[in-house]
Amino acid sequence: MSFPAFTAWLCGPPRAGKTTLGLELRRELAGRGLAVERLDGGELRGELWPELGHAADERRAACLRTARLAAMLNRHGVSCVVGQIAPYADLRRELRGLLSPFVEVFLDCPLETLVNRDQSGLYQRALAGEIKGFTGLDDPFEPPEAAEVVCPTGAEGPQESLGRILAWLEGAGLIPPGGGERGEGRQSAYTPEEEARVVERLKDLGYL
Amino acid sequence: MSFPAFTAWLCGPPRAGKTTLGLELRRELAGRGLAVERLDGGELRGELWPELGHAADERRAACLRTARLAAMLNRHGVSCVVGQIAPYADLRRELRGLLSPFVEVFLDCPLETLVNRDQSGLYQRALAGEIKGFTGLDDPFEPPEAAEVVCPTGAEGPQESLGRILAWLEGAGLIPPGGGERGEGRQSAYTPEEEARVVERLKDLGYL
Repeated sequence: MSFPAFTAWLCGPPRAGKTTLGLELRRELAGRGLAVERLDGGELRGELWPELGHAADERRAACLRTARLAAMLNRHGVSCVVGQIAPYADLRRELRGLLSPFVEVFLDCPLETLVNRDQSGLYQRALAGEIKGFTGLDDPFEPPEAAEVVCPTGAEGPQESLGRILAWLEGAGLIPPGGGERGEGRQSAYTPEEEARVVERLKDLGYL
Repeated sequence: MSFPAFTAWLCGPPRAGKTTLGLELRRELAGRGLAVERLDGGELRGELWPELGHAADERRAACLRTARLAAMLNRHGVSCVVGQIAPYADLRRELRGLLSPFVEVFLDCPLETLVNRDQSGLYQRALAGEIKGFTGLDDPFEPPEAAEVVCPTGAEGPQESLGRILAWLEGAGLIPPGGGERGEGRQSAYTPEEEARVVERLKDLGYL
């Protein structure tokens, strides 16, 4: 049985859980034998388009370029797990037009929780005015109104959110059910060293 | 029988035939059932890193970013046909370190032929000083000394060059022999419309 390559776009403000959940989702999908690549907005900014800042048009450009990569991978049967803020409704509509199937996953977390959870001081610096154009503060995050999956990440843990996403993907026929035979199809594209490096980085950022 | 994903990097100065030959090679590899993506330096500049100009460090950055994409695709079993000048020897060594198997294909064409062949006026403008930092004129092209394949594109046509590349790839066990069963494995990632669009663009550029 084969499954169409899709893109699950995890959107939401900083510290809503995009990276953590993206890692979990990638691991689970790879475990079910899918070819899958994780495209993290922050990593791509660092490696592929460091020239882009965080003005509205630059945020748009970064997301559209990510979408091009995802479309390229999808064409070759590789599903993508994107973690990128994608703060504007019209931008997300444009992304949806570029990617099919497009699964919008909204990580919905109240600002108060985001601020309290953030151990890296990012929100404190933004609240102090040291970072301008910060999503959810002085740059808008327009909440998705028709996302395929909504995860209330302020009220539930990553495993519950992961379960929601997987259930939706199973229901849509995009992934095989869990608990079956593992290791069929293609293997994980990540080495254990790469996984470890990502986890270290997340610890540095105060996620874990 | 399965084949490892590889990257064939077609390097050489402007108008040496990188795009034309890249299209032919991609088509042939897809016809032999390989998963293959064409990464064209000019197209990527337009779509993914338009901020980069043609200063030496920007040329390097563009190539290194292309290599990251190729590595990502290779990880998922997709071979890449890159067409990008990559003018410096140390840069090509760095690319080789990032990609494996790395097949350096040098399109070796004398300057006089490049100038005479160029119907778009690009070389004339560069020779008139209207374009600065032009590869082969006031920016160096350091000829590869140990390329896997050398195609004298000033003295032979695209089909002969294509034959050289295919013969090398077959000899290295990277692709199945031609003339066998077609259509096995994965299908072309290009639609006929996309092919047509590329051909039109090549005509506009005076390649065809």
